[in-house]
Amino acid sequence: MRTKAAVAVEAGKPLQIMEVNLEGPKKGEVLIEIKATGVCHTDEFTLSGADPEGLFPSILGHEGAGVVIEVGEGVTTLKPGDHVIPLYTPECGECYSCLSGKTNLCTAIRNTQGQGLMPDGTTRFSMLDGTPIYHYMGCSTFANHTVMPEIALAKVRDDAPFDKICYIGCGVTTGIGSVINTAGVEIGSTAAVFGLGGIGLNVIQGLRMAGADMIIGVDLNDDKEEMARKFGMTHFVNPKKIEGTVVQEIVKLTQTEKDHIGGVDYSFDATGNVQVMRDALECSHRGWGVSVVIGVAPAGAEISTRPFQLVTGRVWKGTAFGGAKGRTDVPKFVDWYMDGKIEIDPMITHTMPLEDINNAFDLMHKGESIRSVVIY
Amino acid sequence: MRTKAAVAVEAGKPLQIMEVNLEGPKKGEVLIEIKATGVCHTDEFTLSGADPEGLFPSILGHEGAGVVIEVGEGVTTLKPGDHVIPLYTPECGECYSCLSGKTNLCTAIRNTQGQGLMPDGTTRFSMLDGTPIYHYMGCSTFANHTVMPEIALAKVRDDAPFDKICYIGCGVTTGIGSVINTAGVEIGSTAAVFGLGGIGLNVIQGLRMAGADMIIGVDLNDDKEEMARKFGMTHFVNPKKIEGTVVQEIVKLTQTEKDHIGGVDYSFDATGNVQVMRDALECSHRGWGVSVVIGVAPAGAEISTRPFQLVTGRVWKGTAFGGAKGRTDVPKFVDWYMDGKIEIDPMITHTMPLEDINNAFDLMHKGESIRSVVIY
Repeated sequence: MRTKAAVAVEAGKPLQIMEVNLEGPKKGEVLIEIKATGVCHTDEFTLSGADPEGLFPSILGHEGAGVVIEVGEGVTTLKPGDHVIPLYTPECGECYSCLSGKTNLCTAIRNTQGQGLMPDGTTRFSMLDGTPIYHYMGCSTFANHTVMPEIALAKVRDDAPFDKICYIGCGVTTGIGSVINTAGVEIGSTAAVFGLGGIGLNVIQGLRMAGADMIIGVDLNDDKEEMARKFGMTHFVNPKKIEGTVVQEIVKLTQTEKDHIGGVDYSFDATGNVQVMRDALECSHRGWGVSVVIGVAPAGAEISTRPFQLVTGRVWKGTAFGGAKGRTDVPKFVDWYMDGKIEIDPMITHTMPLEDINNAFDLMHKGESIRSVVIY
Repeated sequence: MRTKAAVAVEAGKPLQIMEVNLEGPKKGEVLIEIKATGVCHTDEFTLSGADPEGLFPSILGHEGAGVVIEVGEGVTTLKPGDHVIPLYTPECGECYSCLSGKTNLCTAIRNTQGQGLMPDGTTRFSMLDGTPIYHYMGCSTFANHTVMPEIALAKVRDDAPFDKICYIGCGVTTGIGSVINTAGVEIGSTAAVFGLGGIGLNVIQGLRMAGADMIIGVDLNDDKEEMARKFGMTHFVNPKKIEGTVVQEIVKLTQTEKDHIGGVDYSFDATGNVQVMRDALECSHRGWGVSVVIGVAPAGAEISTRPFQLVTGRVWKGTAFGGAKGRTDVPKFVDWYMDGKIEIDPMITHTMPLEDINNAFDLMHKGESIRSVVIY
């Protein structure tokens, strides 16, 4: 069949809207009609050329929602008409990683996915001249139709709006999951969130859900404060506007009559900046502070600290897709959204048709959007 | 009173055996007769001048065992004749850190201890000419008698030999505790231990106690292999004698038919070398590997890695005194030694009187000893 897609033809160039060929689903695969897709910083990272593993030409996009059109041989858990969210982190339930019960990082199709291919080592997309087009993060939601493995699709309820729940495919789950799955925040905790963009806001609402007492947001842009407070932030720090370092400021904010040491119980980096990751670790509490790296750093960038920070009890962790097991957890997140436990609507600041998708990248560069969503 | 001590008069110089003045115990303090003390790398670190917080003149030593001679006002949990192990990490049970239940890093006397002083801000030791002599890690076990706060003394059973259980005051507890308290190793785990000295051997016996299936020891010195195998090491890697990196070698050793990824569930740095700390993190398993920094790094040295290592599920932690709460856990470790659950005797390779304590440092430098113990 043919479908319409925004193709990343070359690094650093705008996406090109075009008709492409799409082969039907092979064994264990499913054809999806994408109804809506968010545009995420990770798409921008790859499109810019900064991603050393970026492949071109490819169809980007990994934060979608859609409907099953056709299932391939052997597919048993999905049928045409089912509503689904694509998962860049699949959940096969059978690989060594899934069976460990200790990680969400399913490894069933990791190698081919990293090479922009379906599990059989080929692509389903091609240019009209036959040139293969790479898949992206196993999803390629910047196409009106895509083919994905069954294990990489979460079936969700039919009454949830595609243009909102697509955000659960990445940002919402990453942010909230980092709080509840990776950090395991307890009621009454103190926390700091570095970077108040789309991920940071979801970390904040995760912290509110988890019952944190003090939620400190850190951003260089004062304009981020208002929205972050709406999601539960209790204190705002702009590192440009304080005396001393951001670590000192957070320690000061958290010191009490009982606790002269100070520091937050949990901290989260949602910036991708390695110096910020260090600050996040070092502002966490001596003895038990847990710091979670969420952001994706530039190629080759490294985090550093004195080992004394760890020896005195701080823990440095990271998270991918918020530690969520997609097929299990994503339908639950959709329920939470429909029940009003999770807010999404205020974060979707812009919507547009596929034809205007390059505007989403412009809005992101200018810092004007939290999330732009393409509606097919 | 007067007592005999090995005084660190100046950085980089041998200890000097001399008579010193010792004031009696003040409120909340206890006078101890030290019966035996281990000589640890941390003493050497400070004596060498590499420790930026080192103070001189001081009486080093922090791995002792002895008998209570006299208690100061208000001391209720100890009486003359009690056998005790000095704790450089006290356990007051009342400070914010102790009450948190989340750390062993009691902060009741942290500030004065770090300045080489008793909690009232003065020293009990002085030269015969009246010059104050600093305390060290709150212990100063290189003196035949010392004064310590009640909260920094673990009462232990009377039938345990001082010249063996002194090692529980640091090395044994640090090594075994890092496995059972900090890492929380489960039965059937795989693990790697970097550095097969006194701490590394105790990590290995901790892993054996915890039921680890595969215990890989890493050391540049082949002579360490035999002893480490006696304590439970199952595989030995000498990084000088392999092709490729030590991380690649450990990944290869742990790959199985079911697990193509490889890497150990738990890794431990017992070297203090920051490059080794990095290797220890990076040889741990994608998705769930936990790496524990035990070693003390040189001043200013920093650990580094790509944040991708954390984002893909590895956890970087550290441990001080093996995460043990001294007054609670040390008596238990002594019981375990007396019950034969913990081996100590083969690790005490040398004993000597205080007069020969400088030999202990020489043996350490030459790599000939695992642990030297001074018997008073």
